[in-house]
Amino acid sequence: MVSKVKLNDSNSTRVRASDLQKQLSSIFEAVGTPEDHAEIAAKVLVSASVRGVDTHGVANVVGYSQSVENGVYTTPQQMDIISESETTALMSGGNGIGLVSAYRAMEIAIEKAKKHGLGMISVRDGHHVGMVAYYAMMALEHDMIGMSMTTAAPAVRPALGAKKMLGTNPIGFAAPAGEERDFVLDMATSTVASGKVGLARRIGVPIPAGWAVTPEGEEITNPPEGENETWSLNPLGNTREQGSHKGYGLAVMVDILCGVLSGGGFSNQLARGENMTWVMAIDIAKFRDVDDFKAMMDDMIRELHATPTLPGEDRVLVAGDPEMDATDDRIANGVPVENGQYAAIRARAAEVGVEVII
Amino acid sequence: MVSKVKLNDSNSTRVRASDLQKQLSSIFEAVGTPEDHAEIAAKVLVSASVRGVDTHGVANVVGYSQSVENGVYTTPQQMDIISESETTALMSGGNGIGLVSAYRAMEIAIEKAKKHGLGMISVRDGHHVGMVAYYAMMALEHDMIGMSMTTAAPAVRPALGAKKMLGTNPIGFAAPAGEERDFVLDMATSTVASGKVGLARRIGVPIPAGWAVTPEGEEITNPPEGENETWSLNPLGNTREQGSHKGYGLAVMVDILCGVLSGGGFSNQLARGENMTWVMAIDIAKFRDVDDFKAMMDDMIRELHATPTLPGEDRVLVAGDPEMDATDDRIANGVPVENGQYAAIRARAAEVGVEVII
Repeated sequence: MVSKVKLNDSNSTRVRASDLQKQLSSIFEAVGTPEDHAEIAAKVLVSASVRGVDTHGVANVVGYSQSVENGVYTTPQQMDIISESETTALMSGGNGIGLVSAYRAMEIAIEKAKKHGLGMISVRDGHHVGMVAYYAMMALEHDMIGMSMTTAAPAVRPALGAKKMLGTNPIGFAAPAGEERDFVLDMATSTVASGKVGLARRIGVPIPAGWAVTPEGEEITNPPEGENETWSLNPLGNTREQGSHKGYGLAVMVDILCGVLSGGGFSNQLARGENMTWVMAIDIAKFRDVDDFKAMMDDMIRELHATPTLPGEDRVLVAGDPEMDATDDRIANGVPVENGQYAAIRARAAEVGVEVII
Repeated sequence: MVSKVKLNDSNSTRVRASDLQKQLSSIFEAVGTPEDHAEIAAKVLVSASVRGVDTHGVANVVGYSQSVENGVYTTPQQMDIISESETTALMSGGNGIGLVSAYRAMEIAIEKAKKHGLGMISVRDGHHVGMVAYYAMMALEHDMIGMSMTTAAPAVRPALGAKKMLGTNPIGFAAPAGEERDFVLDMATSTVASGKVGLARRIGVPIPAGWAVTPEGEEITNPPEGENETWSLNPLGNTREQGSHKGYGLAVMVDILCGVLSGGGFSNQLARGENMTWVMAIDIAKFRDVDDFKAMMDDMIRELHATPTLPGEDRVLVAGDPEMDATDDRIANGVPVENGQYAAIRARAAEVGVEVII
């Protein structure tokens, strides 16, 4: 079974989150990103690393800053509001850093929700947004429920289909608890995120049946190198009998809210690296007393935690638990950065001419 | 494999949808449901039957009208708005007919979306709402995107857990197309809806591995009689490796929006038959030109339909296709009502003293 590569003292280096923030921010600035945008991009990447979502973490500063440098990402990006109502906006990401436009969109959604109860933004002309739940989580400190989705170029087949037509089109959803940890869901609508297949390849283990198929519909257990140009990930549910139309249906829902509602294009119209994004904020206080809401969240989370487990399992988790376990460790002890990635970030800092501080 | 029981000339009777509407409406009225509520309840049930969703169709008039008669459903139901903002409302279903309160909630959501772009209602004190996508679909004729969810008493285990803690907590999502059929997703967040297990039992076939487990986590292939008091349905994804935390996470998301946001209670606090419901309407025109939106929907749907299939499959479907195939047939040729259910509806009509017109 492919689980995460365990980062430890021999394969990684612990770095304080605040130092990573400074280092990443300085790299983004050095290639021409305005300071405020550089800080946002760094913050989203560091947050992913702190939460243990290393595939979307600090190492991405290398590629993203290259995209800024070579003009694939437009900098400074112009984030125009194309249309707007009290509660909604269609925004352009200005073909800039996806992290920055998704962040800005959620800021606007929260402002609108404060005034009118709800805020919803669909973002076109965008790029990769990293850990999608980040934007949903921005709602938490405002006592709001947040939701975020992003659509991407094809990697996943439709139910009953044999060719990739949909992105992994993930869904983020965050709701605040009181004494318990907040509920934070972050899920690709495919059986697994693409990153897990790449990970299996890097560490040299086969992937389980149910994750990917050839164009002939045959199971792949040893995925070929590179992007999945010739094969497809399976939608969540995988087979007709186990509900593949559900993962597929959710992926299309994400495509509609992100790609069609924004006009930026659905998965099959997107080039690799293009992402259209959708965010929503819901002001809980417009519905009921926030403390009562959080107390009920706590009750729900405690009851779920207390569920008897399947044989061989330690405990029943609630969405966000693994990431908060990682956060507790990484805030206290520093963020482990895999040694190859650590070297790459340092090299990139030197290359763009900023002080290496990690 | 369990698929639908094929209704044919020997096991069912074709009835015109308009006659079913009149018959059901008259039964609801006869037990004390106000005329307008009776018509709504009938409309939702007939719509499910027309769409081929027979588990949520016309036969339910028998049980629902008994619940009205014996006071389990309060009639006439008082649907108070407990709190309200321009875009949101917390509504009580008045412990009445769930179909009526969900319908009313979506009417309000659409009114709010017309004025302010978005409308969102969470409904407490509710009962079973039938086919959940009905309410999302109400948005379509207003050129809106609709979304609807409902939470229910436990039937499904959490990922890694062995005891049912969550309802099948389905999600409905509808978005209008132009020349193509509208996109209508209606999915339980469990591997299968409860109805399929009951169906397997009735027709005497085993259920596949992956649908249900004992409290010891063992696969069930021959589910015991009655409700799943001792066993659990699996969340969509089923195993850790295939993404059971995703189906589980979605089920909790539904619980939060329906049960916690409304204050009506999450799944594990609900008695069987209690359902809390959430609906949202999104006015597409606030984002972009509606015709352009629909044209892009058409393009997306056509491309999905044109996907090469897995071996042995006829065609790639888009959510809503099977229901529209059924609708085309059933509007033209009448709605097939399984003979036992046909007799039960007629008997119920006679029992409550209304003319038997089907």
